[in-house]
Amino acid sequence: MNYGIALFPSKELQDHANSYRMRYDSHYALIPPHITLKETFEISEEELPLYISTLKEIANNAQPVHINIYKVDTFYPQSNTIFFKIREHASLMYLYDALHQDPFSRNEKYGFIPHLTIGQDLSNQEHSDVAGQLKMKTIEHQETINRMQLLYQLENGSWTVYETFHLGKDA
Amino acid sequence: MNYGIALFPSKELQDHANSYRMRYDSHYALIPPHITLKETFEISEEELPLYISTLKEIANNAQPVHINIYKVDTFYPQSNTIFFKIREHASLMYLYDALHQDPFSRNEKYGFIPHLTIGQDLSNQEHSDVAGQLKMKTIEHQETINRMQLLYQLENGSWTVYETFHLGKDA
Repeated sequence: MNYGIALFPSKELQDHANSYRMRYDSHYALIPPHITLKETFEISEEELPLYISTLKEIANNAQPVHINIYKVDTFYPQSNTIFFKIREHASLMYLYDALHQDPFSRNEKYGFIPHLTIGQDLSNQEHSDVAGQLKMKTIEHQETINRMQLLYQLENGSWTVYETFHLGKDA
Repeated sequence: MNYGIALFPSKELQDHANSYRMRYDSHYALIPPHITLKETFEISEEELPLYISTLKEIANNAQPVHINIYKVDTFYPQSNTIFFKIREHASLMYLYDALHQDPFSRNEKYGFIPHLTIGQDLSNQEHSDVAGQLKMKTIEHQETINRMQLLYQLENGSWTVYETFHLGKDA
């Protein structure tokens, strides 16, 4: 089964992101607005308990995550994905690092660029128009997220939450 | 904020439900296939901790839920909703009852008919065609669900999971 790990921000930020996603994001209907901590990975039902217990330990040792969104950016030319860019923060980097160590797969290919996607799969022309327009907007939002979610993917590509993990010892 | 409480069944059952929902359910993109335990209720941020601690207690005292789907049925003429009908079971009734007692709102209007919706907001003609066709299908599925989810609703009508509660003491 395909799993993924993500942070869901406040309703306020999700509503804001959705105001763009409804027009620009091909995944709008597949999952609510989120910050991906670990991309899709496949594990068997037998392996699941080990991953769950590791996630509990990681969450216990983590701090609630500080999210500071400061601009709209794009992964162009790597991809036409447009996103709210999130400032690097130790609380976020800790989680990303922990989720890319044994037993989790590593990610040698890319560095971690914390972001919340608001547009993807746009044509080059539309991407260029939308990114150009949104990059000029002033955007500034801060919040703290105190839980992360393990999700699994259905056959139609949508995601269901399997479990919530509270970040921090007193969780 | 609007909250709701639901059970998400196995991927297998969700995929099966989605094969109908994609054609017949207006809420297909708003939430994965689910069994509603408590319909939308509104609480403030200040009230949330009380509800969370009550949910933990209810979940601790609960048993994993036994789901036995045995036919397709419809709420017609009350509504054009078509669903997988789930046999009443003590584990399910316990949760429903607990979620309709203080501090939760009661439900004087309807009795609990456990179900998983696969179609809604169909025209009368379409409802009649689809329900007639699906009611003739043999359907038989059993499984056990060991967690329930508290969700909140975004402005676009979609739902985000806030927290998972394990059913049973050893959770």
